[in-house]
Amino acid sequence: MREISRTQVDARWSRPERVVLAVSVDKEGKADIIALGWKMKTSGVPPMVAISVGKTRYSHKLISEGKEFILAVPGEDMWEEVLYCGTHSGREVDKFKQTGLTPLPAKFVRPPVIKECIVNLECKVAGELDTGDHTVFAGEILNYWESEDQRRNLLSIGRESGYEFLGGGKGYRFGAIKR
Amino acid sequence: MREISRTQVDARWSRPERVVLAVSVDKEGKADIIALGWKMKTSGVPPMVAISVGKTRYSHKLISEGKEFILAVPGEDMWEEVLYCGTHSGREVDKFKQTGLTPLPAKFVRPPVIKECIVNLECKVAGELDTGDHTVFAGEILNYWESEDQRRNLLSIGRESGYEFLGGGKGYRFGAIKR
Repeated sequence: MREISRTQVDARWSRPERVVLAVSVDKEGKADIIALGWKMKTSGVPPMVAISVGKTRYSHKLISEGKEFILAVPGEDMWEEVLYCGTHSGREVDKFKQTGLTPLPAKFVRPPVIKECIVNLECKVAGELDTGDHTVFAGEILNYWESEDQRRNLLSIGRESGYEFLGGGKGYRFGAIKR
Repeated sequence: MREISRTQVDARWSRPERVVLAVSVDKEGKADIIALGWKMKTSGVPPMVAISVGKTRYSHKLISEGKEFILAVPGEDMWEEVLYCGTHSGREVDKFKQTGLTPLPAKFVRPPVIKECIVNLECKVAGELDTGDHTVFAGEILNYWESEDQRRNLLSIGRESGYEFLGGGKGYRFGAIKR
């Protein structure tokens, strides 16, 4: 064992990372989408997920105020939309409009689900934790949706073998596990 | 999009999951190891990780009391040790002794690092969040260690192609991305 810098160690334990989207709405119901790598499940009963959102992000404001979000899982065909959502701010652009993604009404929360995603989870914020430059939002899952196809998960990948590289840019690399 | 049950949807978005170990100590300094799938990074400045630990687990008690843990990343050769840690309780067994894993002193915290792991992060608990049947512990990372080899991450996998199946049991399947 040797001590090591943080940049070096991240490459050793952080890949593959599944990429997700989170959808939130402002007071008028206008929706924003953020791309997230930092998320986990955090309860079985009741079912809950936790997401970590940067405090400067527009979605941070919307989720803090609205207390609801959709956790949406993009398919392998969606890396360009994910890259767009991850590199633009909802303060300046309408991400549904710019990406062409389709909002559909959810059943129990105000933010819409994303039609093109392979999974959508309707979440109500049940707790928040201040962690450095991010906030952890724990969401109780109220409803589950899935697409009727078998597209693979989109992953954030490194340069290891075993992945099909799908595309990327601005420091991001997206892929899926090779079939 | 169709509504779906939770069991079905987990298979669509939860794999691959990197598996980690967390090491904590009791008041006498005796160490326990828990296996975790639910973890994420949660801050860049300062660097932090979050882990979700079941409230009934012995490690939950130790981390709640000691406010420190090591996040240790097992290599591809360690699925049997991980399975043992995930299916036994530190209330009844000494997991370092039973698995043969080697504790080494950390630099800034009381729990030891695991010599055989590919990465060890020394963490001090900076915040806790009650989430259903688990608690989220946010840990500020005080120091990073890595092994001097190139073993792959151990993953919790499903039955999709693209993985090298390494072993498993009791409902767990472990693997690594195929090179």
